[in-house]
Amino acid sequence: MPLCVVGSVALDSVETPTERRDNVLGGSAVFFSYAASYFTGVRLASVVGEDWPREYTEMLQARGIDTAGLQTVPGGKTFHWRGKYQRNMNDRETLELQLNVLADFKPELPEVYRRSKFLFLANGSPAQQISVLDQCPGASLVVADTMDYYIRTEPEALRALLRRIDGLVLNDSEARLLTGDDNLVLAGNAIRAIGPSFVVIKKGEHGAMFFSKHETYVLPAYPTPNVVDPTGAGDSFAGGMMGYLAQCGNFEPKTLKEAMAYGTLAASFTVEDFSLDRLRKIEREDLDRRMEEYRRMLTF
Amino acid sequence: MPLCVVGSVALDSVETPTERRDNVLGGSAVFFSYAASYFTGVRLASVVGEDWPREYTEMLQARGIDTAGLQTVPGGKTFHWRGKYQRNMNDRETLELQLNVLADFKPELPEVYRRSKFLFLANGSPAQQISVLDQCPGASLVVADTMDYYIRTEPEALRALLRRIDGLVLNDSEARLLTGDDNLVLAGNAIRAIGPSFVVIKKGEHGAMFFSKHETYVLPAYPTPNVVDPTGAGDSFAGGMMGYLAQCGNFEPKTLKEAMAYGTLAASFTVEDFSLDRLRKIEREDLDRRMEEYRRMLTF
Repeated sequence: MPLCVVGSVALDSVETPTERRDNVLGGSAVFFSYAASYFTGVRLASVVGEDWPREYTEMLQARGIDTAGLQTVPGGKTFHWRGKYQRNMNDRETLELQLNVLADFKPELPEVYRRSKFLFLANGSPAQQISVLDQCPGASLVVADTMDYYIRTEPEALRALLRRIDGLVLNDSEARLLTGDDNLVLAGNAIRAIGPSFVVIKKGEHGAMFFSKHETYVLPAYPTPNVVDPTGAGDSFAGGMMGYLAQCGNFEPKTLKEAMAYGTLAASFTVEDFSLDRLRKIEREDLDRRMEEYRRMLTF
Repeated sequence: MPLCVVGSVALDSVETPTERRDNVLGGSAVFFSYAASYFTGVRLASVVGEDWPREYTEMLQARGIDTAGLQTVPGGKTFHWRGKYQRNMNDRETLELQLNVLADFKPELPEVYRRSKFLFLANGSPAQQISVLDQCPGASLVVADTMDYYIRTEPEALRALLRRIDGLVLNDSEARLLTGDDNLVLAGNAIRAIGPSFVVIKKGEHGAMFFSKHETYVLPAYPTPNVVDPTGAGDSFAGGMMGYLAQCGNFEPKTLKEAMAYGTLAASFTVEDFSLDRLRKIEREDLDRRMEEYRRMLTF
């Protein structure tokens, strides 16, 4: 089933301890869509400026991603993020953040997008996320991401959003910030108590935790020796997860766990190079092959 | 098969964000032995001072732990550690470290200990660990732990030890320190290249990684909502792991992975209260029940 995602499209500048890339394709909706495209048709809604290279759009379209909802603002500049990773490749510092056209982005979904059954609200203000939700009244699974900035500045709007979605995906420090619980098991369940039926806490190189009414579990990250650039890992995780759910057309506990695993593996490819450079080189079979290895790793 | 462990016995004073305990039973060999005792007979070798409460020895003996190798130094004081945990319960600060009788500890194993087939060299200087190894020429599986202090001060002796043991268990920051590799997959394999056939990197609340010639895998920690005091978690992990291996009497890949899981679960009980307070309340069936749950958690 087609999956709709609304989030950011960016030009990223990334510094790692050993390398640097400028103005590469990035943004939450980009990593999400690309990872999800291995599983299902994806409808991407976002905004770019006039500086946006046309070949980037073509690269997304080549994976069957619908870009009808990608607005271009005449005279505008694309959202830009510049960040630097620490030696451990898990912690990073944001050196520069220019919202540019993203600052005034009011998502207006194309008619066909509004009929999507699977909807992912990537990073954005809770008000913006709610406005998208209102445009898709028939969605059967709505999952959102959030970030520390909105947890701090818009707690009430965020709570209103949480009461209306099925799932929330966020990282460990955000879960602690949102709940005040340092123990992630407590934090995950506390978030669930606000509204969503399930919560996924991403722990970067340490994997991801899942919380529903009946289940709590942790899946480790796939142990890749080759971590080049972690940018987009969390969004690729969400893309792999939602893509697989949309492909299966359900969100039974069993499907959700497999989806968590596919999300983990999509992220494991993303970190193996800058931007989409590694993800672009794989086929669905590579994900399935790594899945077999991952299952074996967790079987004893 | 009986398992011999040489390491520290301590009186610990522990502060957590909410509570504090003084002079409770601790030390690497204590946590190790207690966890291992659910699987096999354990022979403990260590040293204490005259201040050592006799009931602590009895508590160990009540689990069938052989304490013939526990020397008491007349007029001496038992090794004392005082530490404080941060709010995240994963990072800690050592506030006080009095080696006392441990400073001059020269392990002399009782005759029956020397015939042990399974040997664990808990924290100690590499020279001391090697002297124990020399006393057990017939051991078929020798695994050691180490710590940042010896990695920094005795790198050559540590390398000599690594060339003579079958397995090394250490934590993530120690693995990075020992190899200079920030990526743990690279670090694990780099340590293996020095000598041991397998390496286990403990990541605290994030689980543990295993490296052998043919296998690399990660198992997550069991997600307990109830983390009271992490002291001894790593030693309980090693105890559960080695205890299970000794019980099975082999160290095939399959047995090693099950042993990693039992180590994980032994640690998950230890952190649920201070000192041995939680571990003392369980039976082998509790470990097996949690094992079933853990297996289910990792199956999809």
